[in-house]
Amino acid sequence: MSLLKQSPKSQSNANVGSVKEETFHCTDRFPLDCGKELDGYEIRYESYGKLNAAKSNAIYVCHALTGDHHVAGFYEGKEKAVGWWNHVVGPGKPLDTNQFFVISSNCLGGCRGSTGPSSKKLDGSGETYGAQFPDLSIRDMIHAQRALIDHLGITSLHAVVGGSMGGMQALQWIVEYPGFAKNAIIIAATSQHSVQTIAFNEAGRSSIRGDVDWKKGDYEETAGPNQGLAVARKMAHITYLSDVGMEEKFGGDHRLSQTNEFEFSVQGYLDYQGKKFVERFDANSYLKLTEALDRFDLVGEKGLSDAVSCVDTRTLVIAFTSDWLYTPSQNKQIVDALLQSGKDASYLEINDSHGHDSFLINSESFLKALDVFLKPNGSESSVIEEEGFRKLKNRYEVKKEADFRAIDEWVNPEDRVLDLGCGRGLLLEHLRETKQVHGLGVDRELGKSISCVARKVPIYQEEILNALAKIPDNTFDWVVFSRMVETLPEPGEVIEQALRVGRKIAVSFVNYGYWRNRWNFLFQGKRVCNEVYPHQWESSHLSNHFSIREFEEFSKRLQANGVRVSLGRKMFYRGDWVRKCQCLPNLRAGLAIFEIIKQG
Amino acid sequence: MSLLKQSPKSQSNANVGSVKEETFHCTDRFPLDCGKELDGYEIRYESYGKLNAAKSNAIYVCHALTGDHHVAGFYEGKEKAVGWWNHVVGPGKPLDTNQFFVISSNCLGGCRGSTGPSSKKLDGSGETYGAQFPDLSIRDMIHAQRALIDHLGITSLHAVVGGSMGGMQALQWIVEYPGFAKNAIIIAATSQHSVQTIAFNEAGRSSIRGDVDWKKGDYEETAGPNQGLAVARKMAHITYLSDVGMEEKFGGDHRLSQTNEFEFSVQGYLDYQGKKFVERFDANSYLKLTEALDRFDLVGEKGLSDAVSCVDTRTLVIAFTSDWLYTPSQNKQIVDALLQSGKDASYLEINDSHGHDSFLINSESFLKALDVFLKPNGSESSVIEEEGFRKLKNRYEVKKEADFRAIDEWVNPEDRVLDLGCGRGLLLEHLRETKQVHGLGVDRELGKSISCVARKVPIYQEEILNALAKIPDNTFDWVVFSRMVETLPEPGEVIEQALRVGRKIAVSFVNYGYWRNRWNFLFQGKRVCNEVYPHQWESSHLSNHFSIREFEEFSKRLQANGVRVSLGRKMFYRGDWVRKCQCLPNLRAGLAIFEIIKQG
Repeated sequence: MSLLKQSPKSQSNANVGSVKEETFHCTDRFPLDCGKELDGYEIRYESYGKLNAAKSNAIYVCHALTGDHHVAGFYEGKEKAVGWWNHVVGPGKPLDTNQFFVISSNCLGGCRGSTGPSSKKLDGSGETYGAQFPDLSIRDMIHAQRALIDHLGITSLHAVVGGSMGGMQALQWIVEYPGFAKNAIIIAATSQHSVQTIAFNEAGRSSIRGDVDWKKGDYEETAGPNQGLAVARKMAHITYLSDVGMEEKFGGDHRLSQTNEFEFSVQGYLDYQGKKFVERFDANSYLKLTEALDRFDLVGEKGLSDAVSCVDTRTLVIAFTSDWLYTPSQNKQIVDALLQSGKDASYLEINDSHGHDSFLINSESFLKALDVFLKPNGSESSVIEEEGFRKLKNRYEVKKEADFRAIDEWVNPEDRVLDLGCGRGLLLEHLRETKQVHGLGVDRELGKSISCVARKVPIYQEEILNALAKIPDNTFDWVVFSRMVETLPEPGEVIEQALRVGRKIAVSFVNYGYWRNRWNFLFQGKRVCNEVYPHQWESSHLSNHFSIREFEEFSKRLQANGVRVSLGRKMFYRGDWVRKCQCLPNLRAGLAIFEIIKQG
Repeated sequence: MSLLKQSPKSQSNANVGSVKEETFHCTDRFPLDCGKELDGYEIRYESYGKLNAAKSNAIYVCHALTGDHHVAGFYEGKEKAVGWWNHVVGPGKPLDTNQFFVISSNCLGGCRGSTGPSSKKLDGSGETYGAQFPDLSIRDMIHAQRALIDHLGITSLHAVVGGSMGGMQALQWIVEYPGFAKNAIIIAATSQHSVQTIAFNEAGRSSIRGDVDWKKGDYEETAGPNQGLAVARKMAHITYLSDVGMEEKFGGDHRLSQTNEFEFSVQGYLDYQGKKFVERFDANSYLKLTEALDRFDLVGEKGLSDAVSCVDTRTLVIAFTSDWLYTPSQNKQIVDALLQSGKDASYLEINDSHGHDSFLINSESFLKALDVFLKPNGSESSVIEEEGFRKLKNRYEVKKEADFRAIDEWVNPEDRVLDLGCGRGLLLEHLRETKQVHGLGVDRELGKSISCVARKVPIYQEEILNALAKIPDNTFDWVVFSRMVETLPEPGEVIEQALRVGRKIAVSFVNYGYWRNRWNFLFQGKRVCNEVYPHQWESSHLSNHFSIREFEEFSKRLQANGVRVSLGRKMFYRGDWVRKCQCLPNLRAGLAIFEIIKQG
């Protein structure tokens, strides 16, 4: 699929090269959500690319629970230890350092240079915080990140981007500082931990707290609760992968020979993961950060829509199908709330077997999604050319776009339009450009949805009925079904849902009552097979074709059943889908477009 | 749904009453799979109901990892502590103690009375085994169970039944002792641990082994690795539940007030689970039993089909949709292998939100499935009456059964018949009773599939294409599609798959070319709406109707594409589906039945 072929740009192997850590020292008192405060703090950070004169090209990258600020490049002398997102950040990469100034910092409470439980207190006592380090929230971490950004003289962010805990931080960013970030990419995240996730974290924490070396958090630096921390890591590590991914990695030969130290290969793998983690992570940090995650709850008593009502950031949420830690459903809840509050939000779901950790994997469609979302408006033409989708300069020449013309005529400037089965977003792009329409597309295919992102058309990658169910009443002026009702089971239900969320509906469909179909059926006793119905019986998809008459009778039945609607404008085109058709449309029209208007 | 209404029998509140533990002492040397041996062993067991004179009514129940032999009833003075399957075993319950003699024993290696790591050695030293207890396999456990059964003078089992580890034992039983058990019910089990499951177990074991009190297994009875064992239990407990189930149980209010000992309600729950477990379970037993589970591997190098090729037991495998420990897919693998080896095996999948632990839950459809599977042949009439499905005494009077008549005519005695979309199994039941046909039904609905089980018709509850993909070439004499091809997308592919697995195919379908359909379409420009096509456009399901002519042309295209088939017999019925139709069938026939024969 040409869309998913990496463009020459994103194939770039260029790196940001050698990088240096920097430290932001803040001696201001720093109040925390728990009611306590820090006397001051340090934030360790790195940056790549150059801040432009307008200071408008900064992208802030938030790391995951056990990640850090070393996002890209390498430290002098350690050329092999490139940052954890080195394939994402760099010249010509999705977070393009030729274009953007990318910053990342170790989070407050961490143990990779920023102030956390293993840091020395600022009171000059020389003691480390240990057990005395106060409880943290994701919001506290954001506040410290904002202070760093202010310190760098940056007054707005082009984007804030993060996966997992980083995604939760990005979400907190756009809620906490409305409009400060123009764009946000929230990846494999959630607005609230599930009970299952809290339970896994709690099992891990109880392993640390139960270790005799934990000493209620006041352990010696060289003799911490390593055993308990390693067990917590092993367990958590399983939740970062997927069942299928683990089979791919270890399946087939997961029993080892008797001479091996371990009986199962995954046992050795986990043992290694546990040991490596203990070397680089502090147990108290692990406790404080996982507790902050478990406490993170933007849903609260008022609901997530209320929490995000202040947001003024164009947002993309990306989930991975195999992620069972922060599931697609949890990620969708974020988009649902943003859309319910009328925000510009998109949702993509990528089919990758690497589970939650998929956001760390170099996968083409993921990089493409990041790339096209962050590129400024107007630069999408290369992507669209790449699609190989349509070569025609004037899309109105295309026979199949008769319904575009009708809808174009009917829609008013600045209308809100929901396009169900929007494909690559051509209609909504056109309506935005010509009529400043506010559009939302729904399509279930990833490739098409990425095209929408490239066109800056908000897209919800989802099945139509599922998407409709989440949209509040009267959200849209128009709901558009462009030649897709025939692919829906029980279309009446879908149309009633559409009438709930929109004031008017435009339904375009191929008229099955067209004389050629009837003729063929009468004299040949079989269905017509042509350009419009291209498949022989045996390779047909299931469908629910209908005629103009059937549609009109349906709308009468709707009214008879007490649904307050009326049929508005109609347009009928002849078999060529170009010439209009006035009389005997059910016999003579090849394509029909109806307007249904909700009353009262 | 009437089928799932508990019958008066299974609503029974009668219990087996007060029960007593018994112990089987064996002083024979007992060789183990690991190469070591035990000098002897004890098996603690319970039994309920009465062994009949023929000793043919015994059912053996195998318990799960942390379960035991106390399956039903209570101990004198402990009336509230009823057995873990008290709702399944008892008078009038699915494992009906009025009818069956039910036995269960604590497994070898356990810690509830049978010989295990916490038992005293038989050498008179007074020492416990502790770390010296040898490695175990599921097969070792079965050998000890068989010795108990022999000791009780039982020469065959009516059934062996078990869930989780118990299901794996039941599977090992039917492989190890072909034909000894007439029936087996394997619930929420697997033939081989997934890498993910091994990883979870390993994380748990490393928690126990890392506890300073473990002392390499030679801990004092009163000072074991309680902390490590509790953490292992907490983690494992999460895998026994489902995400959705945990939300149902703790969702909404999972944060507790600050005055509470715990911050999250699930934290308190897990803490309680951990503490309770430590009181009743031995850490060394936990290590030995989980290792035995991780080692259990009937797939091996030769594959599962080879392993089960000796099986001579009618088998039912039951999975739960929300079980992510032993997934539906893992359970299906067992059935796939049995079917591939030509065995009588059925698969049911129950939609229950309780995750893996669903097999411990009192759910109606689960109890129904156990009940109807275990009842002797001929007693299913009450179930079938309950269905309210068909009142007619003679099913051949039913208009819709025209295709039954044709298929009945064509099938030879003892043919192997695959019925795709078999519904409640009427056709296969009839063919078995009249022609000793060996049938397998495929249907995706649980209620219908349970009806098949009640009719002793082997049933695979699955989507048709998924089921077909698992069946080896040339397994069946006949593959029957009874009025269901029109519900399939790309039916040509399905029919080609069917030609792979069968020698002949019978396809019955409603002829869409029937004159009334044509007439209606020509003059009204809409589809006919009648008894056969009962839905108006807006409430129609997606479909792929076709005519006799289209089917005939398809078969010619098949031949042209090099598929070696010929059209065999045909039967056409008129609009009443009763009178046969000879001329102009595409115009005059309401129902058509075709035979397709694979060449060579």
